[in-house]
Amino acid sequence: MSYYEHFARLHQGPIPLLLGNCWDVHSAKLLADAGYPAIGFSSYALSTALGYEDGERLPFDLLLQTTRRITETIHAPFTVDMEGGFSRNIDGILANIDKVYAAGAVGINLEDTIAGETRSFQPAAGFAKTIAAIADHLSRNNKNLFLNIRTDGFLLNIPTALPETLARMRAYENAGANGIFVPGITGTDDIEQVVNATTLPINVMAIPGLPPIQTLQQLGVKRISMGPFLFSKVYAHAADLARTVYEKKDLNTLL
Amino acid sequence: MSYYEHFARLHQGPIPLLLGNCWDVHSAKLLADAGYPAIGFSSYALSTALGYEDGERLPFDLLLQTTRRITETIHAPFTVDMEGGFSRNIDGILANIDKVYAAGAVGINLEDTIAGETRSFQPAAGFAKTIAAIADHLSRNNKNLFLNIRTDGFLLNIPTALPETLARMRAYENAGANGIFVPGITGTDDIEQVVNATTLPINVMAIPGLPPIQTLQQLGVKRISMGPFLFSKVYAHAADLARTVYEKKDLNTLL
Repeated sequence: MSYYEHFARLHQGPIPLLLGNCWDVHSAKLLADAGYPAIGFSSYALSTALGYEDGERLPFDLLLQTTRRITETIHAPFTVDMEGGFSRNIDGILANIDKVYAAGAVGINLEDTIAGETRSFQPAAGFAKTIAAIADHLSRNNKNLFLNIRTDGFLLNIPTALPETLARMRAYENAGANGIFVPGITGTDDIEQVVNATTLPINVMAIPGLPPIQTLQQLGVKRISMGPFLFSKVYAHAADLARTVYEKKDLNTLL
Repeated sequence: MSYYEHFARLHQGPIPLLLGNCWDVHSAKLLADAGYPAIGFSSYALSTALGYEDGERLPFDLLLQTTRRITETIHAPFTVDMEGGFSRNIDGILANIDKVYAAGAVGINLEDTIAGETRSFQPAAGFAKTIAAIADHLSRNNKNLFLNIRTDGFLLNIPTALPETLARMRAYENAGANGIFVPGITGTDDIEQVVNATTLPINVMAIPGLPPIQTLQQLGVKRISMGPFLFSKVYAHAADLARTVYEKKDLNTLL
């Protein structure tokens, strides 16, 4: 079984896939060693570690280079958070997807908002067309890549988050998405409606207020991402240690 | 005052320079934010984070690229651990040093051992010749770069560590070193002899058994590196968190 098939199947089991979100090669390795069955970037974590703001400010080559080294190093399927595709036209997005595929990823996340001054929705019809073009391109070239499509109504915290999400999910499923990612969703009623509105696996993200994993499993959620939270926790610890050593002038804290 | 001058002066004060050792741009930033007056790579930490073994296995371009982004980002002098120079001939080492300088570093570490199957000494005379060639090259091209020369007798744990170190220090000082780095040294008598044998600032590294910073200051040590210890501590914490979340299936550990 290929890593792609293995990764796709991880979205179909009774237990939700808990994705380990990394920011560099070593964190990818330690997550795989800890047992996470699949690993992926948090784009925020990767960008921040490398010294860039989130929102496609990271040079795409750095993303590719890190992806390549991770897939050479770890023994687990790896998926790449491509944000909006690092291009504003379909040909550019397809070229970028080919590069991510060539770097050894078996899945991507693609989101229907663009992070400019503020984050804003792309029109649903246009984004569905992009998804259809990607699905067609991959199929014609016999490339297997799990298309996890992220829709950001809940993340944007708009009053129409639920109906907007349901409408967009339908359009994206028809266009050829393999999974739907709804970051920011926390209400059990909302989650239930989203799960029941599609045959695709639903992915949610760890944030304060998210129900426990056991509840998410009962609701039929198939994938859970930790987003940037491991990264943020770890670097907060690094900052604490660095400050303590510097202020106390005592290196034993590190040893 | 340039970052180079500032960095050079940090080796002359009554209080030893406590160098913050980073592994990526964000860790460099948080160390600078914590107050460390100068930041530098630990080559082990950088290599490991990027998925390579220590000992010049890291592609040199990755080192340069990370250096460039760090010096663009932080407001502090930055020094690069160049291990053995990432080349086995003087022209290659000079070319690499020019690239590190162009990337914005104001100092380098260069070590007198080569990490092959096992780590072994370069002949002292040959390495002193390399240092002289570097000092001459920098001076003829009006480039300011603090040459911190590492001698590894104590790290290799050889019985003749002290006399070997003293002899090599003398040769390296005569060749144009700006500072001497003696990792692995811990005995107060040894440290005292090393400090008293040279006019150059002496750099030691945090390891278990190293005397407290206050003692090092009294002994006349001018620079203290944390080496890979912050990195190792932080990623051990990351591994613990990752395992706890995975085993307990409880994301609240991260939130």
